[in-house]
Amino acid sequence: MSVLIKNVLLENSKTDVLIEGKKFSRIGNIDSLSVKADRIIDGTDLALLPAFYNLHTHAAMCLLRGFCEDLPLMPWLETIWKKEAVMTGEDIYDGTRLAVLEMIRSGTVFFADMYWFHQDVLRAVEEMGIRCNIGVTFMDNLGEKTIQDNFSFLDQYSKYGNDLITFAPAPHAIYTCSGDLYKRCFENAEKNNLFMQTHLAETVTETEDCKKAHQGMTPVEYLDSLGVLSDRVIAAHCVHLTPNDAKILSQRQVTAVHNPCSNMKLSSGVFNMPLAKANGMKIALGTDGCSSNNNLSMMEEMKTAALLAKVRFDSTEVLSAKEVYDMATVNGAAAYGLNAGRIAEGADADCILVDMTNERLTPSWNLIYNMVYSADSSCIDTVISAGKILMEHRHVNNEEEIIAKARKFIDK
Amino acid sequence: MSVLIKNVLLENSKTDVLIEGKKFSRIGNIDSLSVKADRIIDGTDLALLPAFYNLHTHAAMCLLRGFCEDLPLMPWLETIWKKEAVMTGEDIYDGTRLAVLEMIRSGTVFFADMYWFHQDVLRAVEEMGIRCNIGVTFMDNLGEKTIQDNFSFLDQYSKYGNDLITFAPAPHAIYTCSGDLYKRCFENAEKNNLFMQTHLAETVTETEDCKKAHQGMTPVEYLDSLGVLSDRVIAAHCVHLTPNDAKILSQRQVTAVHNPCSNMKLSSGVFNMPLAKANGMKIALGTDGCSSNNNLSMMEEMKTAALLAKVRFDSTEVLSAKEVYDMATVNGAAAYGLNAGRIAEGADADCILVDMTNERLTPSWNLIYNMVYSADSSCIDTVISAGKILMEHRHVNNEEEIIAKARKFIDK
Repeated sequence: MSVLIKNVLLENSKTDVLIEGKKFSRIGNIDSLSVKADRIIDGTDLALLPAFYNLHTHAAMCLLRGFCEDLPLMPWLETIWKKEAVMTGEDIYDGTRLAVLEMIRSGTVFFADMYWFHQDVLRAVEEMGIRCNIGVTFMDNLGEKTIQDNFSFLDQYSKYGNDLITFAPAPHAIYTCSGDLYKRCFENAEKNNLFMQTHLAETVTETEDCKKAHQGMTPVEYLDSLGVLSDRVIAAHCVHLTPNDAKILSQRQVTAVHNPCSNMKLSSGVFNMPLAKANGMKIALGTDGCSSNNNLSMMEEMKTAALLAKVRFDSTEVLSAKEVYDMATVNGAAAYGLNAGRIAEGADADCILVDMTNERLTPSWNLIYNMVYSADSSCIDTVISAGKILMEHRHVNNEEEIIAKARKFIDK
Repeated sequence: MSVLIKNVLLENSKTDVLIEGKKFSRIGNIDSLSVKADRIIDGTDLALLPAFYNLHTHAAMCLLRGFCEDLPLMPWLETIWKKEAVMTGEDIYDGTRLAVLEMIRSGTVFFADMYWFHQDVLRAVEEMGIRCNIGVTFMDNLGEKTIQDNFSFLDQYSKYGNDLITFAPAPHAIYTCSGDLYKRCFENAEKNNLFMQTHLAETVTETEDCKKAHQGMTPVEYLDSLGVLSDRVIAAHCVHLTPNDAKILSQRQVTAVHNPCSNMKLSSGVFNMPLAKANGMKIALGTDGCSSNNNLSMMEEMKTAALLAKVRFDSTEVLSAKEVYDMATVNGAAAYGLNAGRIAEGADADCILVDMTNERLTPSWNLIYNMVYSADSSCIDTVISAGKILMEHRHVNNEEEIIAKARKFIDK
């Protein structure tokens, strides 16, 4: 499959872009007659940009979007858990497809998922063609049989043929997983050369309980003492960090995933952006699941990240639009070892075409400023993931059927 | 003009809604044959909701969207001011039309504007059919001649024939207007039965400078000492309030306009929602201008208001989705004395039809939760303002021409 995008705006000038297989193969003036492209996209009034990498979500929780809101944490969680307990593999398939549809429509080409029924998540993402790291969730209370099954699954699927879909052991959090389970997950990741996902330092309670249980250590210090932090670890939240925690995460090359909407909505706290930047931490962005956001828009997440840092740390300069765009794109791709998140010959052909006639992108003094501070999903015209067109002129395959099926979940 | 909306979702059940002239005239089962409606809208898969009232913006600043960003306040302001200084009345007309297009597409039917070239703002809003309170801006440095001209304009236009468009004296702020000018503005408002717009208590600097200049009084105390606070005053920001300030604003029935995106982006501070609520203050929502937001979406503003309050005041219960939806709708309408912002027989026919098949509204456990926490402009299908259809199935009159003209501003 090859795609030729003609006459498209790329960093302030018009050019042509050829995609062959999964890669950008040529960028520059390309005569349509000289190449035999399977598809030609007219780039007039469109601009080409890196697409988004959503580094932390629980995709199928889309089905619980707005199920209950504005409650204190525990009653809220208990209501969600009760509903989750009756969700089947088929629901997870439906919910993941709904999430992927929403992500595609808002310009996302890759997501890191952490949920249940990983086989059904796999079905959904394979069908829809999006890139995904599927976290296989571990908690002590799954019991040894399920834990062993999950490790076996990872052993088997680490050599999975579709290189757009990878798997990761995902020990849920320090308050649901023993140190021993963390070690086993990390060893599995090392053995199979996988990444490892986890939640980390999300709330004050987590930190306080950790200190009590583990000789005064913070959650980061505790995981470091277990030897389970490295550049293969992607840690969601990292809200409550001491200067020493930030130093550890930076030294171990852990990627911290900032989820500002979720942290605000659940009153978890504010990610310490100046501390993280000062320590050279690897920072990416994620939306978290739809129960705590309640959408999967990386554009909203970028804007919220920038605005939250500015008001919390009392400086308009603490986080620039370019920095936050990088977190949502190239940093996210790099965290998962992808040569992607940028428009360059040889890089993976992950990109979005945005509609320069959309009111939110008008006028265009600076497209990145507009994408971070003004854009919404209506600006995204076309989405290409590893050379495959996932959305063209706002149309996604099977969208009506996906929506119809997700709407039915409510009747159950 | 009459419009019949058939088979539309309204608060969990399907119904028909008849609009005659500017009002909702009947809600209930209506036989299409029994009424002669000029227009019939098929409400299948649509839900009817109150539309949004944007209580504070500087509409034409849309032309400066993303012009410069991420700078400290003063260099940023100076760059903006330099550009504003060369903007003509025709630019303001173009910029206001762009802003109105964007507001319509995101479900807004009324906005309070505070800017320059009010005659050109009037041209734009009349043409586009949106409701508007046009603030005529006052500052000492305009000079007495312009100040008098502006008062004469208000005297003349207070009896303006189009009841969808009203005018207000808008003394800019306490740091640009003398106490005498505030008094003259307030007297003009009283004489002509107009509302009065102003900025108030936006930054720490404003408060500190005010205390120094005015015997230790806060900005709110200072304006109250001038006798210029009443229920005809709409005060933007009100970020830095003491308990006594909140009490004064509540007693005087001033409407405080919360602009969370702007306050965050400019590092101004966080509106004290618990204090404002505890004192029974009238609270509405606004987007502020596009230089400090950078869009005009009341949906983003609602979500940001709710999330910011939750994280700042460490409680998921401090501001509910319903409360924030009311601030964006019925509270805003009430502040300007409109019998609007709700779907009821006899009320002004201001409303939006949202697309229930949009992924962001799927599934629909609770439509208000989805509108506040998940929706974006792609969810808004049709917008009706005082019985007039401003957008139908995502199409707004003249949209291509408005965008094309606004894009040209950059070449000047």
